[in-house]
Amino acid sequence: MRFFSDNAAAAHPKVIEAIAQSNRLDTAYDGDEWSARLDGAFAELFEREVRALWVSTGTAANCLALAALCPPYRGILCHRDAHIEVDEAGAPGFFTGGAKLMLLDGEGAKVTPDIVESAIGLIRNDVHQVQPAALSITNATEYGLVYRASEVAALGEVARSHNLAFHMDGARFANAVASTGASPADLTWRSGIEALSFGFIKNGGLNAECLILFRTELAEEVAVRRKRAGHLSSKGRMLAAQVLALLEDGLWLENARAANAAARELAAAAADRLLYPVEANEIFVRATSVEAAALRARGFDFYDWGPGEIRFVTSWDQDSKSVEQLADAIRAL
Amino acid sequence: MRFFSDNAAAAHPKVIEAIAQSNRLDTAYDGDEWSARLDGAFAELFEREVRALWVSTGTAANCLALAALCPPYRGILCHRDAHIEVDEAGAPGFFTGGAKLMLLDGEGAKVTPDIVESAIGLIRNDVHQVQPAALSITNATEYGLVYRASEVAALGEVARSHNLAFHMDGARFANAVASTGASPADLTWRSGIEALSFGFIKNGGLNAECLILFRTELAEEVAVRRKRAGHLSSKGRMLAAQVLALLEDGLWLENARAANAAARELAAAAADRLLYPVEANEIFVRATSVEAAALRARGFDFYDWGPGEIRFVTSWDQDSKSVEQLADAIRAL
Amino acid sequence: MRFFSDNAAAAHPKVIEAIAQSNRLDTAYDGDEWSARLDGAFAELFEREVRALWVSTGTAANCLALAALCPPYRGILCHRDAHIEVDEAGAPGFFTGGAKLMLLDGEGAKVTPDIVESAIGLIRNDVHQVQPAALSITNATEYGLVYRASEVAALGEVARSHNLAFHMDGARFANAVASTGASPADLTWRSGIEALSFGFIKNGGLNAECLILFRTELAEEVAVRRKRAGHLSSKGRMLAAQVLALLEDGLWLENARAANAAARELAAAAADRLLYPVEANEIFVRATSVEAAALRARGFDFYDWGPGEIRFVTSWDQDSKSVEQLADAIRAL
Amino acid sequence: MRFFSDNAAAAHPKVIEAIAQSNRLDTAYDGDEWSARLDGAFAELFEREVRALWVSTGTAANCLALAALCPPYRGILCHRDAHIEVDEAGAPGFFTGGAKLMLLDGEGAKVTPDIVESAIGLIRNDVHQVQPAALSITNATEYGLVYRASEVAALGEVARSHNLAFHMDGARFANAVASTGASPADLTWRSGIEALSFGFIKNGGLNAECLILFRTELAEEVAVRRKRAGHLSSKGRMLAAQVLALLEDGLWLENARAANAAARELAAAAADRLLYPVEANEIFVRATSVEAAALRARGFDFYDWGPGEIRFVTSWDQDSKSVEQLADAIRAL
Repeated sequence: MRFFSDNAAAAHPKVIEAIAQSNRLDTAYDGDEWSARLDGAFAELFEREVRALWVSTGTAANCLALAALCPPYRGILCHRDAHIEVDEAGAPGFFTGGAKLMLLDGEGAKVTPDIVESAIGLIRNDVHQVQPAALSITNATEYGLVYRASEVAALGEVARSHNLAFHMDGARFANAVASTGASPADLTWRSGIEALSFGFIKNGGLNAECLILFRTELAEEVAVRRKRAGHLSSKGRMLAAQVLALLEDGLWLENARAANAAARELAAAAADRLLYPVEANEIFVRATSVEAAALRARGFDFYDWGPGEIRFVTSWDQDSKSVEQLADAIRAL
Repeated sequence: MRFFSDNAAAAHPKVIEAIAQSNRLDTAYDGDEWSARLDGAFAELFEREVRALWVSTGTAANCLALAALCPPYRGILCHRDAHIEVDEAGAPGFFTGGAKLMLLDGEGAKVTPDIVESAIGLIRNDVHQVQPAALSITNATEYGLVYRASEVAALGEVARSHNLAFHMDGARFANAVASTGASPADLTWRSGIEALSFGFIKNGGLNAECLILFRTELAEEVAVRRKRAGHLSSKGRMLAAQVLALLEDGLWLENARAANAAARELAAAAADRLLYPVEANEIFVRATSVEAAALRARGFDFYDWGPGEIRFVTSWDQDSKSVEQLADAIRAL
Repeated sequence: MRFFSDNAAAAHPKVIEAIAQSNRLDTAYDGDEWSARLDGAFAELFEREVRALWVSTGTAANCLALAALCPPYRGILCHRDAHIEVDEAGAPGFFTGGAKLMLLDGEGAKVTPDIVESAIGLIRNDVHQVQPAALSITNATEYGLVYRASEVAALGEVARSHNLAFHMDGARFANAVASTGASPADLTWRSGIEALSFGFIKNGGLNAECLILFRTELAEEVAVRRKRAGHLSSKGRMLAAQVLALLEDGLWLENARAANAAARELAAAAADRLLYPVEANEIFVRATSVEAAALRARGFDFYDWGPGEIRFVTSWDQDSKSVEQLADAIRAL
Repeated sequence: MRFFSDNAAAAHPKVIEAIAQSNRLDTAYDGDEWSARLDGAFAELFEREVRALWVSTGTAANCLALAALCPPYRGILCHRDAHIEVDEAGAPGFFTGGAKLMLLDGEGAKVTPDIVESAIGLIRNDVHQVQPAALSITNATEYGLVYRASEVAALGEVARSHNLAFHMDGARFANAVASTGASPADLTWRSGIEALSFGFIKNGGLNAECLILFRTELAEEVAVRRKRAGHLSSKGRMLAAQVLALLEDGLWLENARAANAAARELAAAAADRLLYPVEANEIFVRATSVEAAALRARGFDFYDWGPGEIRFVTSWDQDSKSVEQLADAIRAL
């Protein structure tokens, strides 16, 4: 019974089916009919014109966006626990040509306008100190919190006032939409987001994410950077087909709701042990090593987060029985 | 009837099947059981220990290898028509951090020891001129020629004597093996090759290539660079599974033989029009624009290579009837 | 009697004097009174507003300019014998983050509009091939030829029509001005040049060059890049003072005229042996190895350019007697 | 009366004299007789073979060293107030190709073995997190503290045990030697330092620093990187001559002692206001804005460090009378 990571889950059967169906001769790269439909599909979802480029990992989506938004000699403000800082092997430095991540504090990997303002206030405005060019937030955050639309908008206001580009790492964007009930548009461009890494892989996809550019004029540059980074798949139709399958009939949202619901069930069981509010599909729980061992002995797999802390992640396909069993087991600790 | 590019062909049904079968919860990234089998499978094929890392494009395979073989402040000798020079959007410069491609001449995109020696001879050995650190060849070449094992070995000797790392872009390695009849080992490490980009996508794969490291000590660095370049897929099992499916029972070689056979058939028909000997699955043909138009009018799709030149590429699944029809049409010009 | 390189000559006494005079406590970096006068001094010389940043080498001037003019994922058109290509150890790749030098032919390291147009015509306009973003020329060229103002303007027209930034490596700009008699303005911005590496070190300076930005809005970025490349000297006044000393009363032009005159004298003596017209301060001469040895035996120092070719370079302080002696010696060969 | 920065002081008269004396025709770049003497001069000072390369800024010295010691895909442990982190405009990211500075705490910008060990202990040893490859310390630190030889050695031990390269930013190395009384050898290579940025500019030099490589095998690579970064001056003799002038008869040490002595005098006067022990030539003092204004009104120039904090820096040529006056003024606050 695996609660280790949504990364490791299977892809949704419709995704596999879509890959199989798109497996026929067509134009190479992104000239095929599936890729051609992406802009339109996301335009509908976001209620405005966008440019959507498939890539095969979240790291690629994030870092292609950051490279387009921040020149090598400037910096990107982000939380110190942001995925781009702690889990991408320095990819932002590679893609941007050495731009600096400028780290912010904030509970549950969530930053606030005050935190951003304070950090900016400490930077001397001269040629010796790196000046920030962008702000990047993660929604849902690395600790399973979400930014509501109003919270994103408040940060967007700060970004605008300091002339910062504004990026959202949406590896779990679907979970954030499902959790907040906000429209994708309100959670992003209406709140100032200029580029969104829209994650599908943790949510039923196999290996396709989408980089959504609300600043559509960046698409040409990003397309070149994508090729240059070795991310222009020659049979890209298989990536586009996955995304289209997940967008169809709101499957992406349905998947996220299922994962979130499983997480809420576990959160209720672990209410007095929670390290953070559970707002998406991650549950961080206080547990002694003896307790952790007891859970493992009962067949539950999860991540040791730190001393006395464990993490569960629920997936789109989380078996309801195993969730129930884990909830019971947590209550019984 | 498409003779445009092997890039655009469908994947082999067994590849799609393998993806579907590997679509179940397992460890993320490359910790799964399919990925774990790659080193062994290629060790068998190459008759020695190797390290094999999947990546999703040939550009990624090539450039991760080059970055490990050449420091940013040195250069890579390659043919001026090499894919890394003309078709990867400057990816070698990106991955290496600015190393220089040092361009060589040679008929049919094929270099010889003499050409390499001459080029090296022209480089002043001082701090002002970029010194080469690596040699990269493509087999089969971008013009459909192949290097025999003895030819690779002669270049390997030159590389060794100048202390150059030696890389092979094997986007069509399968076609080269099929064409020369050489063993994979003889065509590579026994002839001095240290890293091979082993292509599968043009040969029945969907989106998996393998970077084969004969200098196995480079694997740790390359694994970090792969992650850092956004090329560590979280469900990497789908990439490994494709490769394993193509390796099984020699399917990769069977596919390449089919493509080569189709090319030979077209070459025979175009014998007096060939720009290069046809040794793999690409056929470059002299044709006036009127002739080209005539072929297109009959339903054949292909690439206008240059004034008076057209290119056909055959694929693993090339329909024999369409090959016959094209051969007839060429003869009838 | 040294005709090896103008790089190796002494600095003008007034330059040393200026350094000594500026050696007093002042604001660090470029906040001092000498640095503050540069913009104005060059504005006068160029008959318009400019931004002038001192740097300590020509490579730094060139590559800071190129980094500001060309993004990492695009290319810079230049002659295949350009200093940036053959003598800067790959610095353009380093400063730009991997942009590609796209090499042009042309007699005497001089390119023409036709040559540039042809090269551009060969580049497929797609995402796989690097697209050019800039054109860089050297005036005087690496072979001692000069571009007249009209020639620069014709290239400027080509650059503009293809949306290319236009840079001039003016390591020997003074010699070009002296040779053509054109105004600095006509030779540069009035002909489309956007950034000029204005060389002083080969012309009586010690270690100060100036990067002149006609696109003044680039100054802020270039200032940051200069610091980031370790080129913001803390006692920058010593660099500014050198430049001001050379600008004063046209000393820079006087120096260049002296060097050019010495070169003309040698050119006259070697008229039937010249490899290129002598238009600045470099003389390329056909000479057998026996002849070269004979000259060396008489105490002349110079560069062996290639088989049967030698190079003389004259300096601002070239002793007229040694020039006469060399002229005689060449005639006597 | 200027206590703003040792960066802004004049150069020592002997340095200017040395520049003037070396101003004659010689081989370009670093082939001249002055440059040739550097290795020997530093070998004597450090009691072992070293390779010494002049560069014109401390940022260049630091970042060339770091680029040679740390590959792009790894990290450099340093204090969060280190000059390389806060005052070099991101130069480490530029020179290394995107390596990550990994920030350490520690009073007065000084790190301890425990702090380093703790930081390393928090890094997951996997491909997702950047692994450190180097440790860099500043001696004297950015807050005017010094590392004794035994303290460096203890850090050297940590570095060795974790396979980290070990770099010292010695922008004020002379002050550290003068303060500790340790031999240059004990403060560096005998304590594990592999590369030292030996500062001269803040200590009587004009624009020459030296990068001292105790791992002499790195010299070839560093020399190439120096050229590639535009830091190979064509008249490098003027840089070498400065350094030799300062080394002669221990002038460098004499200068540092003078600066340190002036700082001690101020420290005594400000004893109850000191933010850090004064061990070199920087004095950080608590002062209200009213007090700061009062000092300024009396003609003293200094840096506002932060709310209620001011910084004085003494130089090699600090006028003893102005020191006395400032001491009195501080006491009188």
